[in-house]
Amino acid sequence: MFGIVGERINTSRKKVMEAVVNRDAQYIREEVLKQEAAGATFIDVNAGACIGEEMASMEWLLSVIQEVATVPLCIDSPDPKVLEVACGMLKAAPLINSISLERERFKAMVPFLQGRECSIVALCMDDSGLPRDAREIIDRAGRLVAALEQIGMKRERIYVDFLVQPIGTNTLNGVMVMEAVRGIMEQIPGVHTICGLSNISFGLPQRKIINRSFLALMMASGLDTAILDPLDRGLMAVARTVAMLLGKDEYCTSYLKAVRAGEILA
Amino acid sequence: MFGIVGERINTSRKKVMEAVVNRDAQYIREEVLKQEAAGATFIDVNAGACIGEEMASMEWLLSVIQEVATVPLCIDSPDPKVLEVACGMLKAAPLINSISLERERFKAMVPFLQGRECSIVALCMDDSGLPRDAREIIDRAGRLVAALEQIGMKRERIYVDFLVQPIGTNTLNGVMVMEAVRGIMEQIPGVHTICGLSNISFGLPQRKIINRSFLALMMASGLDTAILDPLDRGLMAVARTVAMLLGKDEYCTSYLKAVRAGEILA
Repeated sequence: MFGIVGERINTSRKKVMEAVVNRDAQYIREEVLKQEAAGATFIDVNAGACIGEEMASMEWLLSVIQEVATVPLCIDSPDPKVLEVACGMLKAAPLINSISLERERFKAMVPFLQGRECSIVALCMDDSGLPRDAREIIDRAGRLVAALEQIGMKRERIYVDFLVQPIGTNTLNGVMVMEAVRGIMEQIPGVHTICGLSNISFGLPQRKIINRSFLALMMASGLDTAILDPLDRGLMAVARTVAMLLGKDEYCTSYLKAVRAGEILA
Repeated sequence: MFGIVGERINTSRKKVMEAVVNRDAQYIREEVLKQEAAGATFIDVNAGACIGEEMASMEWLLSVIQEVATVPLCIDSPDPKVLEVACGMLKAAPLINSISLERERFKAMVPFLQGRECSIVALCMDDSGLPRDAREIIDRAGRLVAALEQIGMKRERIYVDFLVQPIGTNTLNGVMVMEAVRGIMEQIPGVHTICGLSNISFGLPQRKIINRSFLALMMASGLDTAILDPLDRGLMAVARTVAMLLGKDEYCTSYLKAVRAGEILA
């Protein structure tokens, strides 16, 4: 099944920031319930925009979210201390976002990860910056997976994020990541791939249609998890339709169920 | 550039049939102009539903269409006599739809094709029926191209139609043709691939969104021409967006132009 990380509970969104500042638990609970109802298989929690208050905001968010969430959470923070405290509060093994090949970041994350029951987003970023071609992405993915396996992480708990860059800055940024995902899924069997979709359309008009088409292309290339807004009905309709077209929906059962629920709208 | 065969002038459509019966030239001319304005690179002409009148209907249609058309026509008939007369009327080399590996059909088409200036749709159909897997499609495509080259057709004038079958009858009908197109484009370099999209969604609800997602997947697999309704704005928006995402729209120029023209609507 295609994995969907619901991205809405992020303090960079104005309404979420307001809810955190005002301790508006009802708003947050509804964001969880709506995302789950729409098909989220993880709920992302990001309090990074609460400068100086990330820890307290994360703690509050997790206490509220766990009252209602029935899917695992994705804890989104660059700070191992925040991750440590967050994990101490969780009832189920989370997805942690993220580690990378950047030397300091990797080193800082190792003590947190060792022996821990969690999944991890592994960014194909190293100290030389963003990758420039598919081969480089696949190479970095291979090194990351090897390094994580060496500290005891199971491969099926690793979600490689190959870093989507805007098509507006380089016409080949789309084919680069399509080729990269295909290569990663073939060459590192059992690993997951994940990405935030919307970066592809950064700077261009009519972003929604770009993101939808890009989701179809990435799923065709083998992407198995995406970070997205599950309340974007058009996007979710594409996810369900493409899963069917890729042969992952026997007798079109899920598609037909979604149509009956009014979820497939062109 | 992705090729688009505008499929609207087909007497199986009620309004077109009425226009043909009433010799309503204005209606037909508008269908040509609207399809060209929307991006059609060929205009399909099919009078097959005029039982006993196909020849006369085709002659009338062509005389009207050629008053205004500026792109080549696609002459759609199983009858070599109709094709012969049609070609005699044309100002520009057409795309002929179609030939197949069915023994009688192939034999009947050879005299028509030999030495003729035209392109041809080559259906991967033989006397044993529809293909059952990607390997079989690729094999039939190879035999068709070889047979057509033997009678003097140039490869770049051959459009292989791999025959889209409904996803509702077999969950793997989508991946079968995706794999087939990829194989054909790799193993028979220089050949074109073409298909009618809408058969994929036959029998299912919300067909438009299925057709749109399928177009994205097929373009990603290498399809270079599709038979479709260019007045379906959502479908054309996907075609333009996917072309950009596949790296075929330098500086996103065509996409941005289409947005300004109001053609990219989610």
